[in-house]
Amino acid sequence: MTPEDQMEQESFSKPRTRNASKTTGGTRRRAGVKKNPAAKLKIIPLGGLDAIGKNMTVFECGDDMLLVDAGLMFPDDDHPGIDLILPDYTYVLENEHKLRGIIITHGHEDHTGSLPYLMKDLSRKVPIYGTKMTLGLIEGKFNEHRVKAKLAEIKAGDEIKLGGFIVDFFAVNHSIPGAVGVFMQSAAGNVLHTGDFKLDQSPIDGVHTDFGALARFSKMGVDLMMSDSTNAQNPNFTPSEAEVGRTLRRIIENAKGRVIIASFASHIHRLQQIADAAVANGRKVVVTGRSMVQNTDIARRLGYLKIQDVDLIDAYDLKGTPPEKVVIMCTGSQGEPLSALARIANGEHRTIQIDQGDTVIISATPVPGNEKAVTRVVNSLAKIGCEVYDKKRAMVHVSGHAGAEELKLVLSIVQPKHFMPVHGESTHLRAHARLAEATGVDPRKIFLCENGDTLELSEAGVRFGEPVESGIVYVDGLSVGDTSRDVLDERQALSNYGIATIAAAVNVRKKQIEGPVRVEMRGITGGDVAQLRREAGETVKGTLRRALDKGTKGKDLEKVCRDALLSLLWERTKQRPMVVCAIIEL
Amino acid sequence: MTPEDQMEQESFSKPRTRNASKTTGGTRRRAGVKKNPAAKLKIIPLGGLDAIGKNMTVFECGDDMLLVDAGLMFPDDDHPGIDLILPDYTYVLENEHKLRGIIITHGHEDHTGSLPYLMKDLSRKVPIYGTKMTLGLIEGKFNEHRVKAKLAEIKAGDEIKLGGFIVDFFAVNHSIPGAVGVFMQSAAGNVLHTGDFKLDQSPIDGVHTDFGALARFSKMGVDLMMSDSTNAQNPNFTPSEAEVGRTLRRIIENAKGRVIIASFASHIHRLQQIADAAVANGRKVVVTGRSMVQNTDIARRLGYLKIQDVDLIDAYDLKGTPPEKVVIMCTGSQGEPLSALARIANGEHRTIQIDQGDTVIISATPVPGNEKAVTRVVNSLAKIGCEVYDKKRAMVHVSGHAGAEELKLVLSIVQPKHFMPVHGESTHLRAHARLAEATGVDPRKIFLCENGDTLELSEAGVRFGEPVESGIVYVDGLSVGDTSRDVLDERQALSNYGIATIAAAVNVRKKQIEGPVRVEMRGITGGDVAQLRREAGETVKGTLRRALDKGTKGKDLEKVCRDALLSLLWERTKQRPMVVCAIIEL
Repeated sequence: MTPEDQMEQESFSKPRTRNASKTTGGTRRRAGVKKNPAAKLKIIPLGGLDAIGKNMTVFECGDDMLLVDAGLMFPDDDHPGIDLILPDYTYVLENEHKLRGIIITHGHEDHTGSLPYLMKDLSRKVPIYGTKMTLGLIEGKFNEHRVKAKLAEIKAGDEIKLGGFIVDFFAVNHSIPGAVGVFMQSAAGNVLHTGDFKLDQSPIDGVHTDFGALARFSKMGVDLMMSDSTNAQNPNFTPSEAEVGRTLRRIIENAKGRVIIASFASHIHRLQQIADAAVANGRKVVVTGRSMVQNTDIARRLGYLKIQDVDLIDAYDLKGTPPEKVVIMCTGSQGEPLSALARIANGEHRTIQIDQGDTVIISATPVPGNEKAVTRVVNSLAKIGCEVYDKKRAMVHVSGHAGAEELKLVLSIVQPKHFMPVHGESTHLRAHARLAEATGVDPRKIFLCENGDTLELSEAGVRFGEPVESGIVYVDGLSVGDTSRDVLDERQALSNYGIATIAAAVNVRKKQIEGPVRVEMRGITGGDVAQLRREAGETVKGTLRRALDKGTKGKDLEKVCRDALLSLLWERTKQRPMVVCAIIEL
Repeated sequence: MTPEDQMEQESFSKPRTRNASKTTGGTRRRAGVKKNPAAKLKIIPLGGLDAIGKNMTVFECGDDMLLVDAGLMFPDDDHPGIDLILPDYTYVLENEHKLRGIIITHGHEDHTGSLPYLMKDLSRKVPIYGTKMTLGLIEGKFNEHRVKAKLAEIKAGDEIKLGGFIVDFFAVNHSIPGAVGVFMQSAAGNVLHTGDFKLDQSPIDGVHTDFGALARFSKMGVDLMMSDSTNAQNPNFTPSEAEVGRTLRRIIENAKGRVIIASFASHIHRLQQIADAAVANGRKVVVTGRSMVQNTDIARRLGYLKIQDVDLIDAYDLKGTPPEKVVIMCTGSQGEPLSALARIANGEHRTIQIDQGDTVIISATPVPGNEKAVTRVVNSLAKIGCEVYDKKRAMVHVSGHAGAEELKLVLSIVQPKHFMPVHGESTHLRAHARLAEATGVDPRKIFLCENGDTLELSEAGVRFGEPVESGIVYVDGLSVGDTSRDVLDERQALSNYGIATIAAAVNVRKKQIEGPVRVEMRGITGGDVAQLRREAGETVKGTLRRALDKGTKGKDLEKVCRDALLSLLWERTKQRPMVVCAIIEL
């Protein structure tokens, strides 16, 4: 069975596609959902309101439920050893019978990354709705996870019926092609969810955020608007992606040797601009790094990324091509130690070398928590003598999220009756709330929610309902959901002070130690470590002997040994490592 | 003996103080150092060129050696359990007999923090030169460390003779009072070291960076200039500290409840502005957090911080004072989990509470690596419903370091023959080098150094000499210099995957296991952990029995057990924890 066979590309929704010209023209459309004064729409964010990450929201009206986005979050240093963090979607599983569809607004992992896990946990193949680009990326992940799914392609402008909901998709600009927002009509009222967006007046693919659609939804009545808060604290307008293209072209024009550009692998518009700038300067494009290769393949296949075969060179075929004739697009913009850029910087890349005078562009911003890692790579490159450009030096990156002025503009167009800022930490949500208030939204109708809160929308307005089970689930190696905060605390304790282990065999009746007493230490510092270990062995042996003489046994025996070792270590190192003690009674 | 007795406040230098008016007037001064064509001045940076931190530079001419600054660095997540990082100053100790004095440019810990350790390692009390503020802060640290020292106060404008050197101190603006730069004349040539600085045209204490002195040094000839690269990547001028005062005053004016302001405890100018804004708005000042209390005490005693007793309330006497009548200055601007601000935010502060509607100002910028910690505190405060201002929202912080335009201005005034950017990571140094080139410094005369490099200045110019021993030394609990990268790697491995321990007693002759086989796990995840542990015990027991049957013993016996447990854990968790195995042969 080929990976393709595992996917069922169907259109469950029989969408009615509107042309852009029609959307604004107010042409024929479904009659809309008849409002029912008794109906209640529950809006339940399960993720996305405590962090930029793991976005997931439930929309539930009577017996129908939709899920918008199913993302993950990458762990920070506070979560040692954890691979991924998922939202706790117990509520979705408990109400699986109501679930009519999963809508994915765009292909970023903070909106798609939970899907493979959710799909395995659901007992049936709930259809997943997204644009061609979004589904292309999801399909790639599903193949890796060997997950089968029903993928239903929609286009911006489509309207579909899902249970009692009518869902309209509208185009938005974002740092990935094929991003949409959704307008959901239910018997209880209408909700507009912007998804992640910005307002780019000169988008690379010519697709603008659909102002016409927003105006139309406004006219139909938006009872609740949910909008992207990521950049609510940034004043002004986020610059157009096209600005970055101009900068890249100028840098490449003036570059003498190789040009190496690290960026987000899903930022297809950026990759398009890099490729265009390379070709315009008579350079070939080289793609390296696993996700960069994967995503450019998908995007080219689906028609989102236009690079001619003749303009591409495989990294393995680079020999013979002069450095000044290539632009290398690679992963590693976050300073990941195993990424292509880090390997290039350390001289460990199999096919790409780097020399003094080469140019490196970090065409990205460090995700919070990655600042130091990125700095480390940038400094390595600077030491080699490369010209390094990051966003501090030139406009080689712009955000994909709307700034304060854009957010206010959209609020002014939509004029929502109620407002709920989403996609951000508490500070972002509060900053966005202030913007909404500034555009005239009644502060009593602005809802600051946390994950697990329930908002209930009905004819009577919006109010808080009963919260549901929510939280986070750690993915750690093969294990999903088994790693507790306790395990993480153990790991943190281990990493701060190390661990000492005691192993000894005793005969309690004879009151004697049998064989050697073994003390091992890992991650413990303090003077001469070998000497400390010898001393520790003596201390434990002495303690053990005295305790046996007194007739101590069992757990008490282990406790006195542990305490004696801890005292010694505290005295010698002023630290309290973990101590594991196994006294075997024969 | 009181702490004060431990200090000997002397003036070894018999400095000639110039008034500001005299400095620019070209008045009487020492004849200068007679140049000797055979003389060689070695400039050896031991720290400060790989990071913003642990600044330390050796200046050595014949039998005379000076040390400028002796700082430390705070460790990041890459150094689990480490308390502090010092530069390796072996070279200083090896040449101790030449050391005529230690010059400290200002009181920040990245310039002073190594001093207690260095003082303990030196066999004699080498005098430490600094301004009153600088020495006041050092004295505080020395008392904590029970270190005795010779502290020699200098003033900006002073000129002192130290061995064959003549050293001039000149005032610079920085984010701490009493900051100076130094101009050193030696028989081999003259070096200007800016220290950390900015050009503030409206400084809080009225002390400007001494342009007159810079012009005078330029006229005397600056053979090598070393200058602060921290903000070389920031275009334009760094705003004046006074701008922050205006913002703080406006926020406090409009605040309804408590105002809590977290800042750097050594940023006395900032604290002055906070206090002034509080008093101007009829509020009392409360100081909390250990270093904040210490530093305000020192700065008030030395006359750098002017707050009247009547305007201060002790945190313990707050009861009865209405919230809208206080401004609380506290530590915690870096999100430190045990700081005053974090404790206030978590409702764990003994005397200060916080309520919805209170205002919190983070009057600082996160030091790289602290971004997430700060964000965590800010989000906690936002959730309480506080108005939180950080530098994203208002100009509540400005840097203490010169931006690109300031750096170029100083380069233009000084017109150095050779240039060495200091105080920064590779990227900062390189950015500063580009600025120097832009102001007309010959690129062949710009020296990009690493810690441990030696520059040799003589009549013939500047060239690289033999590098010296350098590097970093970890302070870890009581231990200085004993913690190796190996220990840190062990800690990191422990923190990623945890550890499993095996303890068993065997009789090799009888080929049998004596007593129970004990397997313990810490920081290991994977399904049902209790179940995994049972399984691990069975696996080890079975392996051990089979190995004994085959006559395996000693290290081999431990190896097969370790391997068997690792295989099981890999299979169950796809992780490779550390395994410590102790098989006791009876």
